[in-house]
Amino acid sequence: MITLDNHPSGRHFLQIPGPSPVPDRILRAISLPTIDHRGPEFGVLGRKVVAGLQEVFQTRHPVAIFPASGTGAWEAALANTMSPGDAVLMVETGHFATLWQKMAVRLGLEPEFLALAGTDADTGLPNAWRHGVPAALVEERLRKDTAQRIRAVCVVHNETSTGVTSDIAAVRRAIDAARHPALLMVDTISGLASADYRHDEWGVDVTISGSQKGLMLPPGISFNALSPKALAASKTARLPRSYWAWDEIVAMNADGYWPYTPNTNLLYGLNEALDMLLAEGLPQVFARHQRWAAGVRAAVQAWGLPIQCADPAVYSPVLTGVITPPGVDADALRKLIHQRFDLSLGTGLGALKGRMFRMGHLGDSNDLTLVAMVAGVEMGLKLAGVALAGSGVQATMDHFARHPAGVATR
Amino acid sequence: MITLDNHPSGRHFLQIPGPSPVPDRILRAISLPTIDHRGPEFGVLGRKVVAGLQEVFQTRHPVAIFPASGTGAWEAALANTMSPGDAVLMVETGHFATLWQKMAVRLGLEPEFLALAGTDADTGLPNAWRHGVPAALVEERLRKDTAQRIRAVCVVHNETSTGVTSDIAAVRRAIDAARHPALLMVDTISGLASADYRHDEWGVDVTISGSQKGLMLPPGISFNALSPKALAASKTARLPRSYWAWDEIVAMNADGYWPYTPNTNLLYGLNEALDMLLAEGLPQVFARHQRWAAGVRAAVQAWGLPIQCADPAVYSPVLTGVITPPGVDADALRKLIHQRFDLSLGTGLGALKGRMFRMGHLGDSNDLTLVAMVAGVEMGLKLAGVALAGSGVQATMDHFARHPAGVATR
Amino acid sequence: MITLDNHPSGRHFLQIPGPSPVPDRILRAISLPTIDHRGPEFGVLGRKVVAGLQEVFQTRHPVAIFPASGTGAWEAALANTMSPGDAVLMVETGHFATLWQKMAVRLGLEPEFLALAGTDADTGLPNAWRHGVPAALVEERLRKDTAQRIRAVCVVHNETSTGVTSDIAAVRRAIDAARHPALLMVDTISGLASADYRHDEWGVDVTISGSQKGLMLPPGISFNALSPKALAASKTARLPRSYWAWDEIVAMNADGYWPYTPNTNLLYGLNEALDMLLAEGLPQVFARHQRWAAGVRAAVQAWGLPIQCADPAVYSPVLTGVITPPGVDADALRKLIHQRFDLSLGTGLGALKGRMFRMGHLGDSNDLTLVAMVAGVEMGLKLAGVALAGSGVQATMDHFARHPAGVATR
Amino acid sequence: MITLDNHPSGRHFLQIPGPSPVPDRILRAISLPTIDHRGPEFGVLGRKVVAGLQEVFQTRHPVAIFPASGTGAWEAALANTMSPGDAVLMVETGHFATLWQKMAVRLGLEPEFLALAGTDADTGLPNAWRHGVPAALVEERLRKDTAQRIRAVCVVHNETSTGVTSDIAAVRRAIDAARHPALLMVDTISGLASADYRHDEWGVDVTISGSQKGLMLPPGISFNALSPKALAASKTARLPRSYWAWDEIVAMNADGYWPYTPNTNLLYGLNEALDMLLAEGLPQVFARHQRWAAGVRAAVQAWGLPIQCADPAVYSPVLTGVITPPGVDADALRKLIHQRFDLSLGTGLGALKGRMFRMGHLGDSNDLTLVAMVAGVEMGLKLAGVALAGSGVQATMDHFARHPAGVATR
Repeated sequence: MITLDNHPSGRHFLQIPGPSPVPDRILRAISLPTIDHRGPEFGVLGRKVVAGLQEVFQTRHPVAIFPASGTGAWEAALANTMSPGDAVLMVETGHFATLWQKMAVRLGLEPEFLALAGTDADTGLPNAWRHGVPAALVEERLRKDTAQRIRAVCVVHNETSTGVTSDIAAVRRAIDAARHPALLMVDTISGLASADYRHDEWGVDVTISGSQKGLMLPPGISFNALSPKALAASKTARLPRSYWAWDEIVAMNADGYWPYTPNTNLLYGLNEALDMLLAEGLPQVFARHQRWAAGVRAAVQAWGLPIQCADPAVYSPVLTGVITPPGVDADALRKLIHQRFDLSLGTGLGALKGRMFRMGHLGDSNDLTLVAMVAGVEMGLKLAGVALAGSGVQATMDHFARHPAGVATR
Repeated sequence: MITLDNHPSGRHFLQIPGPSPVPDRILRAISLPTIDHRGPEFGVLGRKVVAGLQEVFQTRHPVAIFPASGTGAWEAALANTMSPGDAVLMVETGHFATLWQKMAVRLGLEPEFLALAGTDADTGLPNAWRHGVPAALVEERLRKDTAQRIRAVCVVHNETSTGVTSDIAAVRRAIDAARHPALLMVDTISGLASADYRHDEWGVDVTISGSQKGLMLPPGISFNALSPKALAASKTARLPRSYWAWDEIVAMNADGYWPYTPNTNLLYGLNEALDMLLAEGLPQVFARHQRWAAGVRAAVQAWGLPIQCADPAVYSPVLTGVITPPGVDADALRKLIHQRFDLSLGTGLGALKGRMFRMGHLGDSNDLTLVAMVAGVEMGLKLAGVALAGSGVQATMDHFARHPAGVATR
Repeated sequence: MITLDNHPSGRHFLQIPGPSPVPDRILRAISLPTIDHRGPEFGVLGRKVVAGLQEVFQTRHPVAIFPASGTGAWEAALANTMSPGDAVLMVETGHFATLWQKMAVRLGLEPEFLALAGTDADTGLPNAWRHGVPAALVEERLRKDTAQRIRAVCVVHNETSTGVTSDIAAVRRAIDAARHPALLMVDTISGLASADYRHDEWGVDVTISGSQKGLMLPPGISFNALSPKALAASKTARLPRSYWAWDEIVAMNADGYWPYTPNTNLLYGLNEALDMLLAEGLPQVFARHQRWAAGVRAAVQAWGLPIQCADPAVYSPVLTGVITPPGVDADALRKLIHQRFDLSLGTGLGALKGRMFRMGHLGDSNDLTLVAMVAGVEMGLKLAGVALAGSGVQATMDHFARHPAGVATR
Repeated sequence: MITLDNHPSGRHFLQIPGPSPVPDRILRAISLPTIDHRGPEFGVLGRKVVAGLQEVFQTRHPVAIFPASGTGAWEAALANTMSPGDAVLMVETGHFATLWQKMAVRLGLEPEFLALAGTDADTGLPNAWRHGVPAALVEERLRKDTAQRIRAVCVVHNETSTGVTSDIAAVRRAIDAARHPALLMVDTISGLASADYRHDEWGVDVTISGSQKGLMLPPGISFNALSPKALAASKTARLPRSYWAWDEIVAMNADGYWPYTPNTNLLYGLNEALDMLLAEGLPQVFARHQRWAAGVRAAVQAWGLPIQCADPAVYSPVLTGVITPPGVDADALRKLIHQRFDLSLGTGLGALKGRMFRMGHLGDSNDLTLVAMVAGVEMGLKLAGVALAGSGVQATMDHFARHPAGVATR
């Protein structure tokens, strides 16, 4: 039996922005005995989880389920719709947008990486990493593409590296305003089932997501929600693909089966997660995360530290990035907090390395686990010698106490 | 599958002074398939847990393991050593001492219930329920018992209803000073494996304990640690007994078996708990609880509320009782905290009904879970309109931040 | 983590007549986090399991749930209804009836131990241990008790040591025919939820049962189903009792709570077991066990070995005892089978030590696990040099193949 | 909670040739809370599982671990070493070899599919699907490839669709004898940790395997064991790849980390599985499967039915395929067995559809579970009206009884 016991007592606080804390019900579900993935019980399970996912993606169209991490679902989105050398317009919003762009290069595409220009005067950090997708720039760029060489616009909905949740409907409007035929592909790996997301209503062609964030599962399953236009594009796309190929998986998923061996035990967990989320109701789930996020941001504001997301209109309900003062290495701080308080925070990724840390407020959390997270961070900041403007814990407590769950907080 | 989902998200904070939060390792261990309690594997398990318990009780003598709650182990202690009509000297320290005394009456014994006199001027609460066992009174009473009718002195080590941890060595000295042959029986149901406890060194004849507190197991197993004198007394004691009879269970436990069906799956958990506690080391375990208790008391002191235990020398490392201000119903407060923050606190028992609540700091806890508990209580107090002198959360955080674990804090 | 890995691969076959194999759903349920036994969720759970148990006992009257093994529930039945020196009529049907009689002596009662006379010519075993309760003898004895000194008739429904399921309705008729006021107390620890049992219809006053047989739970919970007459008797009975006292537990169970700490995690399992059993339907559950038993007995008959139960009218649906040929030590055989085939069988108890072994066909079993059990026994018998008349495995397979589940087999 | 309860009682017999029955220890391990895949505990876990896998693959070179099914690891092997249009020599041994060949086509390679010619006179089935890889044909073909256009020889070690375990060392000798530089790629998805496999000694360049067979895990992780020559080839190969790219994953795995989110909870299970397998010892593990396979084949031979593998030298220790008599639809038989005996068998795949079924003898099995499987099949065959030459169950029992585990059986 694995123990991995580096800490003598108590439950670890997993407050990275995913993998998120997994509910006990789900952990028990994934430990049930594996069954035959070609047997009759499996089809019942498979059809149920596909139908449940459609509700969560808010789509009537197919959702392909891959036994792979979210990164695999990125690849699936590109490999099924693109041909070698195709131009894609990607938008730099942070580390994960950048990784996706690098993947496009690796796959032989020609991504153009659009970004808000400039750096922030106070922090020296790139503006692009502190704001959402600039829909106006997208529109402008598409209008210039009179030859319609751009085959897809690829954006990240909830940028896990920064804590910015972009306005996807605005991107759709930008594409439409430019009368451009590009597909709209959206990564909501860390947004789905925490932040409101509407595949059909927002006109998304391929939505990419994964298991280990809002769905509260361990990592290992990922998804492509599709549009008829995306499915049509896949008929002629020429990038080689096999594992990721939609044709077989979509056809078989419809009956609750897979063309190869699926991730049976994680599907048990997915079934349980969908039961939990749909019983609570998606609007309630979204409101819960918004309330949590507001409570956590209240702490950062009380401390007097900058929030990574510089635009309140696109604050993420899933995570909050905090920029450390000059001279304070965010990773040394994270390490201290981990050692002293058994609390894992997200590191600063890419351009933000050492400059910020990320607090997740998703998954199997509640008011008190989030207050505990804020307390752990506050103790760590003080131990690291950071002068704080005020008590963040108090601010979070005040927020939660004054805004009972179930009452609108915005 | 049971869900019992009254709360939409996150892990419940079980901060009653037992059952305590159970570590994941133990929950997984108790879910392994049940084996034959008469088979060869079982003997290996049985002998291992008996040996481990001896280390935890700090005894070289037998420890009987009953498939029953701690209340059953109280009955076992009396039924094995007493005869109908026997006089026993019991000491009123709170609700559980009172329940044990009532049990003695039910079993046909004649308990005398010794108590510190008077009530506290500030709170109106009985002094006996705010202090430890008064060893001097015990000695005085035994000296008067020139006929030596008193067959046993029965005291509670860690009084779960008040948060007072009595000095058992002092009680032993009192008995010896009075040159009295009475047995010394001690209930440390909620003290064992959290507070230092020394069955042999302190000259205890029967120690009663249970699974669901410091041992971090679900309830359902309880223990009698014995002395040779207690075993000798059991040869002539005439109270009827069968399920609780030491003779068979002690003989069979020595080989790792039971005279009737034992509680197999909880014994798996006990095995795991003993592995965890002995790997950490008992001195480290005790220091950990002392540090936690000091941190939690700092909050109560910051709030300006009275701690139930009026004598700092006997503050419990396991739980802290808090007296609510006049007019504040502690149970209404507890209910509010439970509904708003998914946090269970201990109720005021017996004479303390509605007057106080209890915060447990035992089991699978750590600094952040305890800060969260304090935060939940503080939010609840404010929502209930209690004027607080200062921030308890801040005080707890300061204590934990300034006193790293592993460094002596007293 | 406990491993207890004496066997290199595969699932152990636990085919003793209890503890029975526990379904995966139940093992997962008992591993959920422990909750506050005084909180609001607990009452919901407690009320649900009490109501479910009433269905299983087929009673409208209270069922007390003890955090203890079945042996404790025996003690509870006697301690609540009897006074020191009371005469009870017990009936020798095997080892467990004998243990219960010894307990009555220990508790200060005066049991009379009625038994069918004589020994069996073929096996030299006592007739009493190969037949059910002789109702005619009970009636005869009660008729002679003109002073009505006998306070209770105590019988075992399903005698786990022999595989005999007595006719309890006949015992009730015997008492009524004798116009005797004695209480009828019945142990169906290993019968409940496998064999049909009707507390109310059969006029039983106290039924004793436990968790680890037909209810498919680990050991550690036990039950007393009561009649109004039993409750009335408890008002005046004078045996000392506290842990077992019905007054408090029945009153509190009615609200879903307990006077002391209950066995929380096993109650999760009980809740799950009741869901499973009641969803299947009790008649289906009973038919399932009858069919299994017939299939296993077919093997014993094919081998040409005597079944311990000499009266086909009272064959147990729960277990089948097999008498080994002269010179074949049944325990040596069991040991060989355990070592070679990872299969646990029940030992011969008391008068049957070394003369027989017991095969359980209860709990989380199905046709193939029972065929496997029969195969393991048959291989062991051959390896031990026992000449067999024919293939038991073939007989069991033929029975199961010819009698599909769900079709009446008697 | 998912129940998937189509069967009223007992444990399902999962006797397909994978996913195999998962040991309870592993199911409990995968249910432990997810941790941070970038935290310090994770590196310890990651390094341990990589080192353990090297022992199991019998290699000193890197083993890449993918969060994907085995099919993904096939794609990884090709995508990392090949360039568009490359010729690969694949060998038809059954359905999985065929699927791999189809994948090569999808990925833009030019596979040549070598096969033993002809069909079997008795069964009409292709000879290629009843024998192992014909090393002589491979050598012959490579000798003709004087231009050395063939970049890789791809074979399946244990063909899960037929129950044939090819001689990989012979394939290596064939390549060497032809003095051909092609890479040797071997799929041992269903062979690893059941059948002896020696990556280094046999000179394999890329070995593909997965979690859900001999490693006894749920599906969802797969592996590429590499040679220095394969790593060198990956530097110049031009197929697009990102998720499957060895460069990043091998570099990060060396430290116990991953370039994207790994399958944390399945890695807990892998850690546990490696502990179990290496504690038992690989030679013991292989001998255990050989003994099981011989016992199961004894049944098929007793029935008088043809074993799919026509060459005893390459009988699989993992599974046994059985050809049904003319007119007996193997899938109708499987369905009947599933409904009546809660036993899942493998279907006939591809060319074998309806003509045969497969019995797995791998994973968490033992003598009695395999006897049960054979009994279930035998009952099903009889119910389907198949005339059997003799008792397969008896033959299996005789084999197991006469050949104790731990004694060489070949």
